[in-house]
Amino acid sequence: MSDSFSPFRRVQVVRVGRRGEGPADDVAATEEPLEIRLHGKPFAVIMRTPGSDRELAAGFLLSEQVIRSADDLGAVEHCRHPDHPNVHNVVDVYLIGDAASTIAGHLEERRNITTSSSCGLCGRVTIESLRSNAMPLPVGDRIQAKVASGLPESLRGRQAVFDETGGLHAAGLFTFDGQCRHSAEDVGRHNAVDKVIGAMLFENRVPLSDHALAVIGRTSFEIIQKAWFAGIPVVCAVSAPSSLAIELAHEAGITLLGFVRDGGFNLYTHAERLIPNPSSLIPNPEP
Amino acid sequence: MSDSFSPFRRVQVVRVGRRGEGPADDVAATEEPLEIRLHGKPFAVIMRTPGSDRELAAGFLLSEQVIRSADDLGAVEHCRHPDHPNVHNVVDVYLIGDAASTIAGHLEERRNITTSSSCGLCGRVTIESLRSNAMPLPVGDRIQAKVASGLPESLRGRQAVFDETGGLHAAGLFTFDGQCRHSAEDVGRHNAVDKVIGAMLFENRVPLSDHALAVIGRTSFEIIQKAWFAGIPVVCAVSAPSSLAIELAHEAGITLLGFVRDGGFNLYTHAERLIPNPSSLIPNPEP
Repeated sequence: MSDSFSPFRRVQVVRVGRRGEGPADDVAATEEPLEIRLHGKPFAVIMRTPGSDRELAAGFLLSEQVIRSADDLGAVEHCRHPDHPNVHNVVDVYLIGDAASTIAGHLEERRNITTSSSCGLCGRVTIESLRSNAMPLPVGDRIQAKVASGLPESLRGRQAVFDETGGLHAAGLFTFDGQCRHSAEDVGRHNAVDKVIGAMLFENRVPLSDHALAVIGRTSFEIIQKAWFAGIPVVCAVSAPSSLAIELAHEAGITLLGFVRDGGFNLYTHAERLIPNPSSLIPNPEP
Repeated sequence: MSDSFSPFRRVQVVRVGRRGEGPADDVAATEEPLEIRLHGKPFAVIMRTPGSDRELAAGFLLSEQVIRSADDLGAVEHCRHPDHPNVHNVVDVYLIGDAASTIAGHLEERRNITTSSSCGLCGRVTIESLRSNAMPLPVGDRIQAKVASGLPESLRGRQAVFDETGGLHAAGLFTFDGQCRHSAEDVGRHNAVDKVIGAMLFENRVPLSDHALAVIGRTSFEIIQKAWFAGIPVVCAVSAPSSLAIELAHEAGITLLGFVRDGGFNLYTHAERLIPNPSSLIPNPEP
């Protein structure tokens, strides 16, 4: 349980003023750096919780728009170099097709970058370039509001490591009838989303139309950006969205729910994907 | 309240199943990109909540080790270019002394980097280089355990915007007798820490020996790294630390408290700075 591959590690603490005093054994969520290499060259280092590293790498590369679909992915494997001391912390990625031909530019752009958050923004040069050129997601199937309002609670029920450590974020992908397709935990909330999306890439299910992403926590610009690039039209979060998350969700055609708890929620954008449609009158966010 | 400089913005929501149904006015924490320029050249873009931008820039540069102290800071000002459309989202920094002479290297290293999290890791090339060469913080004054256990609650009492939006992280710097020296809120928890440290840089109070940092949330590697570079020997967090945060706190000589709530806490490292010392026997973390 305390090896490098475990999502949590044994630690020794001293409890003060609660649950009895004195030394005690406890567990902490594992955080370790993962190096992602493209064609053998360092591309990014992400602080993450070990587990689903291949999925994290794939999802991260989609968020970075280095790849556009599973068709761009050749091999995604842990490093096998016999002399490398931390092969479990290195994932080698090889691209194919169009993605492979533009790799030199990505490597040049992202040279020497380390990120702590799998943020989906690294590598952008200017404020203006933060926006995406992706098309707004179309309205396909719709989701019952009652189903959407239960997704974060359903996700929380799957959070095995959080129960142990209290230290992990979670993300889950659900069908519109509330079935959990995949979920992941990580010290970084962006990582948890990338792991889920990466798993779906390997199953060749991206774009994920008619799916909803649930996150335990807040919604930032990057969470919406990741959902957009993966084609996920509904995002449900336990906590508050930022102003830019709301603006981007509006632009992306994403139905954004926040404060999803106790059977209710706040709806910020694109009511038309909910049944019943709680309002056809959500105005544009202020410019 | 809805201008670009406000920490929150008016948004329109539809409330479903809670607090009454239907459209309502609400507020969301503002998230906007801040571009930090070094000597007129783009250095980093950080997604942040507007406010204390100069402090954020200064604290970020300390976390990045571009500067080592306030002595390295020349001018830190919002862009004044009359033709720039978003001058409130650009901070120009000019360094002096040794820091200025190494600036070309930093610009080359960090070229084209955007970060969402003010993470203190960006720009590192390899996993091995993540560790710092800083010296462990010495034990100077000690802090009453009872004072330390009350700091997050004291910080929460100052969180004006959180009460409005539920969307902001907070960090606060306290003296060992529990007086709040400075606090900040931000959509990014690393930003909140950088804003506090940056404010202290401008007051020429860094290194911040005999101070404690309180954060609402979890403690990651980067939070401990930022505290270390600022010389803050005590970190108190409401939630759990990661395994790497514990390891780094041990190495840095930082007293790390987690789950600081309801009058109690878990002590992870360096008990010798607490009064009464709850234990002299906190073992090294497992390698």
